[in-house]
Amino acid sequence: MTARNLFLLPGDGIGPEAMGEVRKIIAYMNEAMNAGFVTDEGLVGGSAYDAHGAAISEGDMQKALAADAVLFGAVGGPKWDDVPYEVRPEAGLLRLRKDLELFANLRPAICYPALAAASSLKPELVEGLDILIIRELTGGVYFGEPKTITDLGNGQKRAIDTQVYDTYEIERISAVAFEMARTRQNRVCSMEKRNVMKSGVLWNQVVTATHKDKYSDVKLEHMLADAGGMQLVRAPKQFDVIVTDNLFGDMLSDVAAMLTGSLGMLPSASLGAPDAKTGKRKALYEPVHGSAPDIAGQGIANPIAMIASFAMCLRYSFNLVQEADNLEKAIANVLEKGIRTGDIMAEGAKKVGTTEMGDAILAEF
Amino acid sequence: MTARNLFLLPGDGIGPEAMGEVRKIIAYMNEAMNAGFVTDEGLVGGSAYDAHGAAISEGDMQKALAADAVLFGAVGGPKWDDVPYEVRPEAGLLRLRKDLELFANLRPAICYPALAAASSLKPELVEGLDILIIRELTGGVYFGEPKTITDLGNGQKRAIDTQVYDTYEIERISAVAFEMARTRQNRVCSMEKRNVMKSGVLWNQVVTATHKDKYSDVKLEHMLADAGGMQLVRAPKQFDVIVTDNLFGDMLSDVAAMLTGSLGMLPSASLGAPDAKTGKRKALYEPVHGSAPDIAGQGIANPIAMIASFAMCLRYSFNLVQEADNLEKAIANVLEKGIRTGDIMAEGAKKVGTTEMGDAILAEF
Ligand SMILES: CC(C)[C@H](C(=O)O)[C@@H](O)C(=O)O
Ligand SMILES: CC(C)[C@H](C(=O)O)[C@@H](O)C(=O)O
Repeated sequence: MTARNLFLLPGDGIGPEAMGEVRKIIAYMNEAMNAGFVTDEGLVGGSAYDAHGAAISEGDMQKALAADAVLFGAVGGPKWDDVPYEVRPEAGLLRLRKDLELFANLRPAICYPALAAASSLKPELVEGLDILIIRELTGGVYFGEPKTITDLGNGQKRAIDTQVYDTYEIERISAVAFEMARTRQNRVCSMEKRNVMKSGVLWNQVVTATHKDKYSDVKLEHMLADAGGMQLVRAPKQFDVIVTDNLFGDMLSDVAAMLTGSLGMLPSASLGAPDAKTGKRKALYEPVHGSAPDIAGQGIANPIAMIASFAMCLRYSFNLVQEADNLEKAIANVLEKGIRTGDIMAEGAKKVGTTEMGDAILAEF
Repeated sequence: MTARNLFLLPGDGIGPEAMGEVRKIIAYMNEAMNAGFVTDEGLVGGSAYDAHGAAISEGDMQKALAADAVLFGAVGGPKWDDVPYEVRPEAGLLRLRKDLELFANLRPAICYPALAAASSLKPELVEGLDILIIRELTGGVYFGEPKTITDLGNGQKRAIDTQVYDTYEIERISAVAFEMARTRQNRVCSMEKRNVMKSGVLWNQVVTATHKDKYSDVKLEHMLADAGGMQLVRAPKQFDVIVTDNLFGDMLSDVAAMLTGSLGMLPSASLGAPDAKTGKRKALYEPVHGSAPDIAGQGIANPIAMIASFAMCLRYSFNLVQEADNLEKAIANVLEKGIRTGDIMAEGAKKVGTTEMGDAILAEF
């Protein structure tokens, strides 16, 4: 069997603690299932800045490019609030997304039944919630040029960011959304602001054309992004797959994540295009939550989002579908049993730390 | 007494019905209180397009510029989905905002006690909610140039929108936020994406400097806009005044509005700078909800947001503070009495149409 190469970037804050629990699962899979994972590890974010003066080193970028999949923890923290813009912790993540061409960000917003009560929404609105947000990740205002601050004199500065989308970028992300919808409820809702933004006009046109050309079996709906935010709060279960641009995706996926009451549990996958020869996609997996510097190093962080991100890795990078299902099932079982980290604590549940949570999931796996 | 000049732009969909109820209140105030309102009326949105081939005519723009205040209903509907981008219904509203330089959009998100149960959030999270979102309204990606779609050949197009902010634009909107905070709980939360956008970096710097210079008595907090969206859903009552840019404000104010369960009730005010000589601000008042073409013309639309927008007009354009308070109180009383339009219907309440709701509020006024 060929080796399965994983590159681990735990990052800052609670990233390393959460990643530690994934390492246990990898070791178990190598031992018990002969999975053949080979891991290497690097630095990203503030920890990379401290070591190399950059948010990720060239050497680690090369390793990320060469790996079958990257597992990413989290970056940032108050310690690096004042480092120069170009080397701020987030720059490492943004460079990985861009240089690996990870244009398709998959963010499932599911509500674990055991956690429905933790949502700020009424339980009946979120019980059984299962949305997949497909966010474009390498274009839009995140990377468009010019992106500058200019001194105009007279004490005035001018800041410019540029939202740019080309037809092919919208085509490929909508294709991913339609493909995913076919494996689910076969419905896609595309969100933009075509009433204000030219990129919204083009987005709407290209999604519509892609649908007509190749995916007319999928039900397609269009919604203005602001109305979409409202509808997510009003009746989230109306959605199956949502496809949207980089910035709207950032906002909408965070709102959707919070709806589930399961924020500390939500994973994400960022995928590239299939390689023309091998069919393999470059990929990076990361929890939706951030680095939570306030609780870092205390052994109390919830590792579930990181573990669920590894489950997505098993599914999308290695086609280990059964193993992915089992790992996701293990997480749900542990929650059903009332084992909880502090962030999802409930009356009558058993409160555990990061490693106990990891152990409990491993025991169910 | 000098006349108080109001320019009414009812617009499309339910706009005209809702405006009809405000007209009754104006007539009553002229008669019973000698308020001296003089009204004129024009067309905007789809109805203006049908009449003039533009989303607002030059004549109506002149009248809007000359008035003390503009009352705006709503624009848009499926009938105009395919008109050219430059004359789409929204273009009328955007031109009014830009040409009247209405840079400060005030969007209160309050939860009427009688309606807390209508929120999708748990009642304890929204009862007593009272947030004021201050959205920058004449800058950012809404108006920045270039704003184009270019044909690149090979079947590829490129869409570009440009987010631009100058120091003075951020200064004046944050000053409004700090001033407003002083009349409330004295707390401002500024939201941007400084980790990704240069405009976010400048926004953060200028808000911080304006605070330090002139408003250091106000408590200032900064939040990333995506985290802000999350926090609005998780614990909305943590906020007093939120200040943010045009596009984030569009999204965040819609999410906040939906949280209250009172979407059909929420007003907004869009204000310009005080005139150097007279101290008067140009102003436009409009409901947060849209034109709801699906229920237009049936006499069932909820006129409360439009009436509450007129209350803001009394307060901000004419300094009729007592009258504004009374009108807002009249709305709350009617709701307490269980009089409801269909959109906010509840068990045991009395269901009424648009004109009955307007009459009931007038009777309490
Ligand atoms: C950390 C930050 C750059 C990032 C983003 O804005 O994309 C994060 O919010 C996310 O959603 O992954
Ligand atoms: C109608 C539309 C142009 C407008 C906007 O995007 O600003 C609306 O959504 C709003 O929030 O007032």
